[in-house]
Amino acid sequence: MSNTQALPLLDADVPEAVAPCCPPLTERPFTADEAETAARMFKALGDPVRLRLFSAVASHEGGEACVCDISDVGVSQPTVSHHLKKLKEAGLLTSERRGTWVYYRVEPSVLAAMGKLLTSTSSAS
Amino acid sequence: MSNTQALPLLDADVPEAVAPCCPPLTERPFTADEAETAARMFKALGDPVRLRLFSAVASHEGGEACVCDISDVGVSQPTVSHHLKKLKEAGLLTSERRGTWVYYRVEPSVLAAMGKLLTSTSSAS
Repeated sequence: MSNTQALPLLDADVPEAVAPCCPPLTERPFTADEAETAARMFKALGDPVRLRLFSAVASHEGGEACVCDISDVGVSQPTVSHHLKKLKEAGLLTSERRGTWVYYRVEPSVLAAMGKLLTSTSSAS
Repeated sequence: MSNTQALPLLDADVPEAVAPCCPPLTERPFTADEAETAARMFKALGDPVRLRLFSAVASHEGGEACVCDISDVGVSQPTVSHHLKKLKEAGLLTSERRGTWVYYRVEPSVLAAMGKLLTSTSSAS
């Protein structure tokens, strides 16, 4: 059997806490729980290499990429994998194994929720 | 002379690198420079206490607050001041001294720029 055959094994271990959690930052002070959840996502994007990898996945053709597609950020492939794992743990990426490669995809609902956090309520009204 | 008299001394040391820096994360892979700039802002919001303070300032009446207004997050006032300084260094807040208090205000252009980063180009088109 060829090891390039597709074997979709949807990886569903996205942390539940990552679901849209919080009102816009300008609406009211965050509770401790809201701040914990949102800070986890911001922290995941608070590293330059991780942010480059995230934007590489997010902007890749079809909205997904494997490690083989996005290793052009000047760090080793194990480091790339480590950062992708962190992004996955923060719920910003999902992953799916196909054959020998794991494909990463941006979780659009999380991206939208983070964008909404940063929307100014004063400019929206 | 009363020490409650207003002494507006606009504090203009917002890092220049914080100006809207980057395309949406989904548009194309970030360059190293773009990632450095944007990661600095995300990192500043990647701490739960800092995020609570930021939302407390952002949602406070008039869009500004002094330390005296927002110390209800379970940490000491020096810690609050430390975190506010970090947010200022990241360009997310500006500050202005009036009498005995320093007032913090969210930098709306930076908030808007961060929101734009997280906008999905695919959903916008």
